[in-house]
Amino acid sequence: MAYNSIILRLELNHELNHFGEVATAISKAGGDMTSIDVIRTTQESSIRDITVQVSDQEESRVSEFLKELDGVKIINISDRTFLAHLGGKISIHPNMPIKNRDDLSRVYTPGVARVCNAIHEDPRKAYSLTIKRNTVAVVTDGTAVLGLGDIGPHAASPVMEGKAMLFKQLADVDAFPICLDTKDTEEIIRTIVHISPIFGGINLEDISSPRCFEIEARLSEQLAIPVFHDDQHGTAIVVLAGLLNALKLVGKRINQIRVVVNGIGAAGVAICKMLLSAGVTHLIPVDQEGAIVRGEHYSQPMWQWLAEQPQVENQPGRLKEVIRGADVFIGVSRGGLLQAEDMKEMAADNIVFAMANPEPEIDPKEAGPYVRILATGRSDYPNQINNVLVFPGIFRGALDCRAQQINEPMKLAAARAIASVVSDKELNELYIIPSIFNEQIVTKVRHAVIEAAILTGMARRIPPDFR
Amino acid sequence: MAYNSIILRLELNHELNHFGEVATAISKAGGDMTSIDVIRTTQESSIRDITVQVSDQEESRVSEFLKELDGVKIINISDRTFLAHLGGKISIHPNMPIKNRDDLSRVYTPGVARVCNAIHEDPRKAYSLTIKRNTVAVVTDGTAVLGLGDIGPHAASPVMEGKAMLFKQLADVDAFPICLDTKDTEEIIRTIVHISPIFGGINLEDISSPRCFEIEARLSEQLAIPVFHDDQHGTAIVVLAGLLNALKLVGKRINQIRVVVNGIGAAGVAICKMLLSAGVTHLIPVDQEGAIVRGEHYSQPMWQWLAEQPQVENQPGRLKEVIRGADVFIGVSRGGLLQAEDMKEMAADNIVFAMANPEPEIDPKEAGPYVRILATGRSDYPNQINNVLVFPGIFRGALDCRAQQINEPMKLAAARAIASVVSDKELNELYIIPSIFNEQIVTKVRHAVIEAAILTGMARRIPPDFR
Repeated sequence: MAYNSIILRLELNHELNHFGEVATAISKAGGDMTSIDVIRTTQESSIRDITVQVSDQEESRVSEFLKELDGVKIINISDRTFLAHLGGKISIHPNMPIKNRDDLSRVYTPGVARVCNAIHEDPRKAYSLTIKRNTVAVVTDGTAVLGLGDIGPHAASPVMEGKAMLFKQLADVDAFPICLDTKDTEEIIRTIVHISPIFGGINLEDISSPRCFEIEARLSEQLAIPVFHDDQHGTAIVVLAGLLNALKLVGKRINQIRVVVNGIGAAGVAICKMLLSAGVTHLIPVDQEGAIVRGEHYSQPMWQWLAEQPQVENQPGRLKEVIRGADVFIGVSRGGLLQAEDMKEMAADNIVFAMANPEPEIDPKEAGPYVRILATGRSDYPNQINNVLVFPGIFRGALDCRAQQINEPMKLAAARAIASVVSDKELNELYIIPSIFNEQIVTKVRHAVIEAAILTGMARRIPPDFR
Repeated sequence: MAYNSIILRLELNHELNHFGEVATAISKAGGDMTSIDVIRTTQESSIRDITVQVSDQEESRVSEFLKELDGVKIINISDRTFLAHLGGKISIHPNMPIKNRDDLSRVYTPGVARVCNAIHEDPRKAYSLTIKRNTVAVVTDGTAVLGLGDIGPHAASPVMEGKAMLFKQLADVDAFPICLDTKDTEEIIRTIVHISPIFGGINLEDISSPRCFEIEARLSEQLAIPVFHDDQHGTAIVVLAGLLNALKLVGKRINQIRVVVNGIGAAGVAICKMLLSAGVTHLIPVDQEGAIVRGEHYSQPMWQWLAEQPQVENQPGRLKEVIRGADVFIGVSRGGLLQAEDMKEMAADNIVFAMANPEPEIDPKEAGPYVRILATGRSDYPNQINNVLVFPGIFRGALDCRAQQINEPMKLAAARAIASVVSDKELNELYIIPSIFNEQIVTKVRHAVIEAAILTGMARRIPPDFR
C-alpha cells in the first residue's frame, strides 16, 4: 500500500467548530496527522495547514469527512510528493561565477580556445578539462519504468531525475537524465554512441527485456566508457550482497545451496549470472512456463545461454514444484505467486528474497513463521533490497579509476563491499543488508570497485589514495 | 593578440635576490604583473605566487628571463585559464536534499510513481513536474568551433560548458552540453529528436555550414520545442541591434541604405535574412567568388534563395568593387581583407561591423580615421558584437511562454530590445551596443520575445507577468 503525504489548508470558524472535531474526522477517515501550521488567525476564524499521511483510498475519505463538519472550509489540498516535483528536481550550476570580462575571457571566448586546442591535441585531456571526469548519463526509453511498464520518455523523467539526485547526494556524481523517444534497439544504440563524448559513463535504466541485453552488450563493445544497466546489475549485486550475509547467518556455503530464481527478465538473468560468478552450483531459473532446464532449447538467447550452463538443473517443473527443498528463493516476478505451504516445503533455514513491487511474491506476514530470512523490495519491511545501495558507489569507483568497463570482478567486489558494511555483531535475520543512508556504503563500494578494476587491468588511472 | 593570465610560483632567496629584480625581469619580458601573494616566508627565502598577464610569445620569455636571475627558482607555472577548466565548469545539483526515507519515498520510489502516472495521462504536465520547463540542450558536432574549425566533440566541450555557465548566470536557464560524435546530417537530426523529451529547447552551436541550415529547419519542423542555431540567429540579432542604433546615430533609414554582407556561411545567411525582415532594400551578399547576384543560379540552396530575393542587387563584382558607395559593411569572413582605401570609397557616415575573429576584416586602427562607426567581435575594442547578448534572454522568454518556435518576429523583437538598452542620451559612436553585463538585457529581451510570441500565436503559456 502506497502512503502519500497531503497538506490540507483549512479555514476553521471558531464559533461553529473546535479543532478537536477536525482531528477526530481525519483519524476516523484513516489519516495520520503529522504536523499543523497556523497560517493566519482572526477572532472569528483561522487558516491552518495540516499535513496528513494517507493511503490513496483514504485521501478522498478525509476530504468527505471534513466537508460534513460545520464551520470547516477546505481551501486547498496539496500533495507533498507533487510539490517536491514542481519545476523538476535537479538543476545545472556554474562551478564558479563569471564576475567580469576577465573571467568571461577565461571560461568562454577567447581564452577557452586554448583549452579546446589542448583537448584536440590530446583527447584524454577531456577528463581533466571538461565535465567528462564526473558526468554520467542516466538513459531510458521509458519502456519498463518501476512497475508501471511502458509509460514513455516524458513520464519516465521523474524517476531519472530522482536517480540524478541520489547520484549527486550519495556519491558526488553529476548525472543527467536522457529520456529517449525511440524504442528501436538500433536507434537507441546509435543515439547513445552519438551523445557519449561528454559522458564518463552510461547508466541504462528501465529499458525492457530482452532489448536491454543487446543494447548493453553492444554499447559496452563500442564505447570506451562503462555502461551499466542498473535494473540488471544493480539488482543482482545487492541480491548477492544480501545472500552472502544471509548464508553467513544460516551457516550454509554458496556452493552447496539450491537456488530458485523466479522471473527471468532483465533482473532475473543478471541475478542468475551473478550467482554463477559467485559460485552457486545448483541453480533453477523459472519463468511463467516453469523451470528453464539444462539441455532444452529456447528462442530467447539469454534463456538458451542459461540452459547451457552446467550449474543449471535439468529437472523440469512449475515454480511450486521446483521450490520444494530449495534453500533460497529469489523472486523478481509478480505479487502473490506463493503461499505459506510453499515456504514450508523449502529446506530448513530457508532464505526468501521476494522482490516483486509493490506486492511481493509472498505476503511477508503470511511467510513470517515459515521463513528464516526474508527480504523484499519494500521500505516498510526489514531487509530492503534496493539498487540505491549500488549505483552511486559503483560509478564513483569506475569514474575515479576511469574504468573502461564495469566487469564481473568489479560487480562481485561491490556486492562483497555492501555485505561487509553489516558487521558480524550486527548481523541478524532482520538486518542482512545496510540502510541506503549508511555513510560507509559509497566509500566501501568505491574502494572495492577500484581495487578490482586495477587488479583486472580495467583501470586507466590510479586514484591518489591507491598510489 | 590573445592574452593569458599565468601564475608563477617562485622561491626567492633573500640573500641573492631582491624582489625588484623579479619585477623588472617580468616587465622586460613583456609581462604585466597584476597580483602577488606571499605563500610562505622564512628568514632565508620566501615563496610567492605572482599573477602575470602575458601573450603566448611572452610567456616563454618571462620564464627565460627569470631563470637567468640568481636566487630565483620557478616552482611551478600555472595558467589561470586552464585552472578555471579543471574538473569541468558546470555541475548538477539536487533542488532539495534527501534527508530521510520519507524524502526518498517522495522523490524516488515508491512516491514518484504517482507523478510518472500523472505525466503519462497528460504529457503537458512534464512542463510542471520535470526539468523540461527550464532545460536547454546546447548541441554541437564540433565542426565549426570558434575560429578553430572541425576540432571534434571532445575539444568542443569547453565552449559548450562555458555557454551553459552563461545561460545559468545570466538567465537562470539550465543548459546541458551535448557533443555529438557524428557529422552526418541525418544522424544528427535523428539523435536530437530522440533525446528531445527532457528538453524545453535546443540551442544548436558551432555546426558548420551548409549542414546547419537543414539540421535547424528539419528539427524545427519535427519538434514542438524551439530550435535555435546561435551562430546564425544570435549573431544576426545582435548585428541588427547594433545596426539599428548606428543608423539612429548617423540619421539614415534602414530602407535607404546599401548593405554589403561578406561571408555567406551560417552567420552571413542569417544576417542577410534578418536584414531583409527588418526592411533593408539594397543588399549585396558577397562570398569568395564575389557578389551573389539576383537572377544568377547557385548550387548552394541558401545562395540560390538569396539570388531570388528582389532586394538583392543584380550587379556582379568582387568585394573591393561592390563595397564602393556602400553605407554599411558587415563582415563575418576572414581577417585583413580590407584596407583604408576601401573604407574611403564607402558612402559618407559609413558603418563597418568587422567581426572576423581573432583578426577583423579591417584592422581597427587602420580603419579608424575613415569609418564613422566601427564594431568588431573583440572585447578589446568598443562595440563588441557578441552573441552572449542574445541567447540567454531569448531562451528565457521562449521557455517562459513555452514557445513552439523562435520565429522571425521574436528575433526582431529581441534585436530591438537589445538596441533599446542604449538610451538616446548614452548613444554615441563608441557605444552602440550594451555590455553583456548590463543587467537590463535579459529582462528586456525576455519581455520583447514573449510579447512577440503571444502576438504571433507562438506562446502556449501566458507568463504571470503578462496576464
